[in-house]
Amino acid sequence: SNARPDTMASNSKRDIQKQAIEQILKNAEKNLGELCTTLASYTRKTAKLRDKVDLLVATLIDFSHTEDPEFQIGLKNLAEDLALVQDYRHAQVERLETKVVTPLKAYGDIIKNKRKFTADLNREQKELQKLEKTRLSNPADRQKIAEVNAQKASANAQRSIKQIEETITDFQRQKLEDVKKVFREFITVEMLFHTKALEVFSQTYGNMEVMDAEKDMEFHSNLRHQGGMDGELEQEEATKDEEEESETEMEQDEHIRQSFAVQYAQTTRKHN
Amino acid sequence: SNARPDTMASNSKRDIQKQAIEQILKNAEKNLGELCTTLASYTRKTAKLRDKVDLLVATLIDFSHTEDPEFQIGLKNLAEDLALVQDYRHAQVERLETKVVTPLKAYGDIIKNKRKFTADLNREQKELQKLEKTRLSNPADRQKIAEVNAQKASANAQRSIKQIEETITDFQRQKLEDVKKVFREFITVEMLFHTKALEVFSQTYGNMEVMDAEKDMEFHSNLRHQGGMDGELEQEEATKDEEEESETEMEQDEHIRQSFAVQYAQTTRKHN
Repeated sequence: SNARPDTMASNSKRDIQKQAIEQILKNAEKNLGELCTTLASYTRKTAKLRDKVDLLVATLIDFSHTEDPEFQIGLKNLAEDLALVQDYRHAQVERLETKVVTPLKAYGDIIKNKRKFTADLNREQKELQKLEKTRLSNPADRQKIAEVNAQKASANAQRSIKQIEETITDFQRQKLEDVKKVFREFITVEMLFHTKALEVFSQTYGNMEVMDAEKDMEFHSNLRHQGGMDGELEQEEATKDEEEESETEMEQDEHIRQSFAVQYAQTTRKHN
Repeated sequence: SNARPDTMASNSKRDIQKQAIEQILKNAEKNLGELCTTLASYTRKTAKLRDKVDLLVATLIDFSHTEDPEFQIGLKNLAEDLALVQDYRHAQVERLETKVVTPLKAYGDIIKNKRKFTADLNREQKELQKLEKTRLSNPADRQKIAEVNAQKASANAQRSIKQIEETITDFQRQKLEDVKKVFREFITVEMLFHTKALEVFSQTYGNMEVMDAEKDMEFHSNLRHQGGMDGELEQEEATKDEEEESETEMEQDEHIRQSFAVQYAQTTRKHN
């Protein structure tokens, strides 16, 4: 061959670089693809958890309707707070989708474009080699032309190596920055949810603590003893009075012992 | 009928009470059954979420192996911290099972026993009514015996009402106390998990922040330029030196920038 040793070295280095970038793209495709699939599945499972607690909320509200005032308020408050936490979980799901899953999904296209770019470089390179061969087959002033062409080919090969190196470096840098960004978003979204859930539940716990079964026992016992054995009509009226009285009590009670969710909604309304 | 008016009233009130307790047991069976099913399902979905993040941890560790030192450490640390949060989630799942789902499951048996108790009371009552009838059919000193028996039946009915009332009250009180306890446990278990997750992730976030893609770019560029174009053997040796050097660097780096999980494990080991 008439090509100079550094051109040969360049071509050999170019092949190594080609293999390297192919390996890097293959790894990225595999790793980012798996991250995307797993995080998308995590997001879906989180949404299912939200739906399950929404079902628990509905069950608690049904339950509260069969209970006396104290537990009726207590269970309703619990349900409202659980529902509020699910609002935060819903925000978590939406943020995971837009800030974590979607950017990772985009990597399929990014890798496809990089592959196209390196394929273009390879095709260009092959055309130049072909051109060099054609000129070498020309017998006139063969040695001189060969020298010039070999220099051109060498410079070309060097430029091509530099381009591929830059492509690798750019892709790697961008990939690492993007992976870092995606997981910073992931951690932020998770922390935000945990913080909000903690904020709500610490209030809910306080509300649960003051729920007093004895109050409902007394409420029921009063109903029974005021009604007494003096005929149904009188008993019914007594029950009605008691109910009216207890509704006022409930309203007062409700004013004092609101769910965190309702207090939160009122604060938000005030601010808007 | 020879029964006195208050006995009739007692019997009528007893029927109302019987209906009431039947309704209470029916509601409890439905409400606590639904709570149990929903919370068991929530627990299973939480376990699935744990499994999904465990898969993410494995993917991150695979990923870290294809990266240069800076991101290799960064991704490994992230994986370890995510794994630690899943340990907490596993504890959450186990606590939900023993402290929330199991006590609610026990309600099926509690309600069955209450039903048996009221069925026993009813049978007893019917036997006494039968006995009264037999005695009334005896013609000798009919009026007097009837009086005595009616008094007995009335006292009996009153006692029976009292027993049923107590049964209702005890069951209701116990049910409310148990529901309160179960949800206090639920909130506690959830809060514990959120607190721990927040503790880990705030450290993880700090570790993510210092991950610097440029360091890996420089690491790679050094590898390339030290190797230069001076033949493969020399390049390989340079790479080997570089790798040895970088391993030492990595060890140092690792010492400084450990995952929260590893720091946590070391602290725990020290305390034990």
